[in-house]
Amino acid sequence: MNLAIDIGNTRTKMGIFEQHELKHVFTFDNDTTFDLPNIIQENAVQKIIISSTITIPDFILQTIKLVSKNLILDEHTQLPFSNKYSTQDTLGKDRLALVAAAQATYPNQHNLVIGCGTCITFNFINNKNEFLGGSIHPGLRMRIKAMHHFTGKLPLVELQQEATLIGNSTQTNIINGVLYGTSKEIDGMIDDYLVKFPEMNIILTGGDANLLVYQLKNQIFAIPNFTLIGLNHILEYNA
Amino acid sequence: MNLAIDIGNTRTKMGIFEQHELKHVFTFDNDTTFDLPNIIQENAVQKIIISSTITIPDFILQTIKLVSKNLILDEHTQLPFSNKYSTQDTLGKDRLALVAAAQATYPNQHNLVIGCGTCITFNFINNKNEFLGGSIHPGLRMRIKAMHHFTGKLPLVELQQEATLIGNSTQTNIINGVLYGTSKEIDGMIDDYLVKFPEMNIILTGGDANLLVYQLKNQIFAIPNFTLIGLNHILEYNA
Repeated sequence: MNLAIDIGNTRTKMGIFEQHELKHVFTFDNDTTFDLPNIIQENAVQKIIISSTITIPDFILQTIKLVSKNLILDEHTQLPFSNKYSTQDTLGKDRLALVAAAQATYPNQHNLVIGCGTCITFNFINNKNEFLGGSIHPGLRMRIKAMHHFTGKLPLVELQQEATLIGNSTQTNIINGVLYGTSKEIDGMIDDYLVKFPEMNIILTGGDANLLVYQLKNQIFAIPNFTLIGLNHILEYNA
Repeated sequence: MNLAIDIGNTRTKMGIFEQHELKHVFTFDNDTTFDLPNIIQENAVQKIIISSTITIPDFILQTIKLVSKNLILDEHTQLPFSNKYSTQDTLGKDRLALVAAAQATYPNQHNLVIGCGTCITFNFINNKNEFLGGSIHPGLRMRIKAMHHFTGKLPLVELQQEATLIGNSTQTNIINGVLYGTSKEIDGMIDDYLVKFPEMNIILTGGDANLLVYQLKNQIFAIPNFTLIGLNHILEYNA
């Protein structure tokens, strides 16, 4: 079995794969610990890959050494696509995983992968298997936090599932600006990609994908666990 | 002469008006002081209005007492429009000024005023002179700061004047996500307003309006000093 570990800014997700098939998913908040040796043993894990957007906690680094085939995704890892990004040392490893997942799922096609997490990333891989880059936008919850943090007066509100065009209270004005506004931003970006690449798969994934998918004008399916699928693909490619 | 003072999160702008005509504009960073008594004396100021999104500095509060007609814009101020916002104590006073300016400039018409400052606000006043509210979005510079502040790894980059769809470096990915993304967000919001209100004036104003206006698909003119114009209108309405 393979174990793919995706350490994000706030949560750690793990996927157990039998070759290319995702069998189980575990999710932990980053401020908790978890019994990784037990997860490895119970699932007969033989290969591990880790991607992290933060410094990898020591107990994870120590534990993965117990498995003979372990891979920490970095800028030197061999990838199943051609990476045209010019500043690879500052490229988020979660984005490499998203692109690898697209390449595995829809090879030799134009793919736009939109990751909706702490940040929202647009990641484009063309039909020649080349990752061209994209853009990085603040995520939904980051927008709410930023408007509270960087202004003297705006309150910290809870993200809601629905938003309208015109709100008549400060809470609804913020929710509209964040949820409705971000949806318009994503739709507008997608529209411009479609002008350049009319034949293109669009994949929406990440923690907030399900919230956003209902707001979008563009009909897109949200695919869960796309990062884990990509990590497993990179692991198999390097095995 | 009238003096309108607009204290924002980062800068203070002042406008000298002869009735409805804006004669001079002064701008100061909030971390500097300025000789307000001298400005009042040199311009023969007889009436003052202040709007602030932060706590008003003491030296300003003391100085305006020297002028017999002084008005601090708050939720009790009489306005030249009907305010339908339900949480008026948390409504930014700069937004009231923008709506007043629209009412003064295009009375009895549908007006959408988009203020592009620390936050980007959408403010809608209909042709019955009713302010219905809108939405609040993070401003351009706030987005850059937030992605640096709230992630472990993204760098703090300088805002640029141009952005493209697909960037191939971390700097261009951030600039694209911020400038291109926000432009798409604003365009998408405007499009949805236009569906509901096909006959509508659209006013873009605020410190970053000139940066954004060139990115927008919708053909809009940026109007400078719209907040000051609105403040002066509220002052005259209360005189």
